[in-house]
Amino acid sequence: MSKQVVLTGITTTGTPHLGNYVGAIKPAIESSHDAALSTYYFLADYHALIKCEDPERVHRSSLEIAAAWLALGLDTGNAVFYRQSDVPAVTELTWIISCVTAKGLMNRAHAYKATVAENESQRSQDPDKGITMGLYGYPVLMAADILMFKANKVPVGRDQVQHLEMARDIAQRFNHLYGEHFVLPEAVVDDSTAVLSGLDGRKMSKSYNNTIPLFVPEKQLRKLIMKIKTDSLEPGEPKDPEQSTLFEIYHAFATAEQSAAIRQRYAAGIAWGEMKQLLFTHLNDLLAPARERYEALLADPGHVEKELRRGGERARDLSAPLMDAIRRAVGIRPLS
Amino acid sequence: MSKQVVLTGITTTGTPHLGNYVGAIKPAIESSHDAALSTYYFLADYHALIKCEDPERVHRSSLEIAAAWLALGLDTGNAVFYRQSDVPAVTELTWIISCVTAKGLMNRAHAYKATVAENESQRSQDPDKGITMGLYGYPVLMAADILMFKANKVPVGRDQVQHLEMARDIAQRFNHLYGEHFVLPEAVVDDSTAVLSGLDGRKMSKSYNNTIPLFVPEKQLRKLIMKIKTDSLEPGEPKDPEQSTLFEIYHAFATAEQSAAIRQRYAAGIAWGEMKQLLFTHLNDLLAPARERYEALLADPGHVEKELRRGGERARDLSAPLMDAIRRAVGIRPLS
Repeated sequence: MSKQVVLTGITTTGTPHLGNYVGAIKPAIESSHDAALSTYYFLADYHALIKCEDPERVHRSSLEIAAAWLALGLDTGNAVFYRQSDVPAVTELTWIISCVTAKGLMNRAHAYKATVAENESQRSQDPDKGITMGLYGYPVLMAADILMFKANKVPVGRDQVQHLEMARDIAQRFNHLYGEHFVLPEAVVDDSTAVLSGLDGRKMSKSYNNTIPLFVPEKQLRKLIMKIKTDSLEPGEPKDPEQSTLFEIYHAFATAEQSAAIRQRYAAGIAWGEMKQLLFTHLNDLLAPARERYEALLADPGHVEKELRRGGERARDLSAPLMDAIRRAVGIRPLS
Repeated sequence: MSKQVVLTGITTTGTPHLGNYVGAIKPAIESSHDAALSTYYFLADYHALIKCEDPERVHRSSLEIAAAWLALGLDTGNAVFYRQSDVPAVTELTWIISCVTAKGLMNRAHAYKATVAENESQRSQDPDKGITMGLYGYPVLMAADILMFKANKVPVGRDQVQHLEMARDIAQRFNHLYGEHFVLPEAVVDDSTAVLSGLDGRKMSKSYNNTIPLFVPEKQLRKLIMKIKTDSLEPGEPKDPEQSTLFEIYHAFATAEQSAAIRQRYAAGIAWGEMKQLLFTHLNDLLAPARERYEALLADPGHVEKELRRGGERARDLSAPLMDAIRRAVGIRPLS
C-alpha cells in the first residue's frame, strides 16, 4: 500500500506567530518525521498575491516562514518543502481544471458570499466591490495545489472545509470527463488543536494585529507578554484558567504536569504580573534554541534558498507524471 | 524605434475553413512576411479547453491549423509560431494578473452577460448555468497571451474589441500598482476584411455547421460548393452579386478584374449551376498547390511538431525577461 499523502500550504504574507505554531507548524513538523506519511509543505506565494500588494512583504514572509519551519526541525529529507512558484505547472493545472469548474461552485463559497453580503449591507452599487478574480478563483488554485500531488489528507481549519469539498467536486468532474486521474482529497479538521488567543483576547491573527511572533528577540517577547489582556482580579484572589489567555498560551506549550501545576497556582490566586513573568520565562526557555537557529538562517538566506530549490525540484519531479497525464487527457500532447 | 508587435491566437477546436482563411489566415500570413513587424501567431490550445471536451479534436485541430498555416506560406523565420501550451508561463501570468483584475470587469463581458440573459430568459434557477470558470475568466487568459509579448496590435473581430479593452484595463491596473511593466495593446478591427457566408447563407462558422474547409479533397470541395444556397432565379434572369454567397466567396479569392468580369456574367443572367462550377474551378486551381503541401504536412506531423517546438522555444526565450520582471515586481524572487 502506498503512503498517505498529507499536504499543507502556508500563505506568505506574514511572520509566523505563536498561534501558527500551535495550530499548523507543530503538527506539520511532527508529521514530517513520520516515515509512514508522504508530506508536502509549501510556501503559497501565488496565494499571497491575492491579499498582499506589497512585494517586499511577500518576499520577506517567504524567508521568515521557511527559516522558521527549518529552525523548528522540519525533516526535509522526508517532507517535500517547496515554494509554490517553483512549481509553475500548478497554474497550468489551475487553468485546465478551471475549464471543468462550474462558476456556480465558486458563487457558493462562504468567503465570497460574506464579502458580497457585506457590500450589499453597505448599499454598494457593486456587490463584487473589492473582489478580484484571484480572490474569487482562489479555491481553484487551492484545488490544483492539492490535486497535483494526489494528496489524501489536507489538515485545515473549519473555515477551509468547504474549499476541500470544492477540490473534490472539481476532481470528480474532471475524472468523469477525462478518466480517473485525480485522487479525491479529504479535509482533516483536528478540533483538539489549540486555537490561541492573542494580546487582546480575540483569536491570535495577523488581521487583528494581536499576535506574538514566534521568534521575536527576548526583550520584545517579554514586552508583548506583559501586554496580554487580563481581568482586574487582585493577587490572592482565585482565578479561572479557562478564562485566561496567559494560561491558554502556557498550556499550549506545556506538558500535562506543567499545566496542572499552574492550574493550582491559579486556584491559589497567582498575581497576573507573576504569571506573565512565568509565561515569559517558560516560552523563552522553550523557544531560545530554535530562535537562535532561526536568526542564523535569516542571516544566511542562501542556505534557505538552497533547501527550497531542492524541494522545488523534487516537487516538480513528483508532479511531472500526473501533469503529463492530465495534459494528454485533455488533448495537449506532441503531434508526433 | 522598435518594431510593432502583432499577435494573433487561433483556438484549436476546428478545421480551418474558407472564412478563417479570408478573415484571419491570409492577412496574418501577409504580415508574417513584413520585416517591419514582429509577429506572434499561436495555437490557443488552453483556450480550446473552454469549449471542447474532446481531446482528440483539440489534438487534431492543432495539427490541422499548424499544417494549414505552414502550407499557406507562413514565414516562420520572421514570425514566432507556437503552441500556447508550450509557453506554460502564460498560465502563471494569468494567475498573477487575475490578482489585480476586478471581478466586476468580467461581469461586464458581453459574452458572459449574453449567456446569463439566455439562462434568465429560460427561467433557469442558476443564471450561471453552463458557465465554467474557464469561460468566465477567459478574458484574463487572453490578456496574459497578449501582455506577455508586449503586443501593440491585436487584429480582432468586432466581438473581441471588449476583450482588448479588458487587457488594457488589467495592464493599466498592474502598471499602477507595480510599475510600468506592460505595454497597452490596441485592437485592430479591419472592417474591409471580408466576412464570408457559409453554405446556408449565414456567416460561415463552425458553430453553424455551414463551413467549407480550406483543404478538403477536390471531389468534396465540388460537392460542398454545389450545396451553397442560391435563390430560385432561372438561367438568363439577371442576378444580384451582392445577394449571392457564390459571388461573395469568388470575390474574396479573386482579383478586382476577375470580380468585375463575374459581375457582368451575373448581369447577363449566368445560371447558378454554371456559377457553381466556375467557383469550384477557380478555388480548386487556387488552393491545389497549398492543399498538396497541407496533405504532405499532415502525413509528416513530426515536421510540424518541430516547427512548433522551435517557435515555442523562441516564445519562451522572448517572454522570459518580462516574466522575470513581473515575478520580481510582485515579490516572487530568490531569497538570496
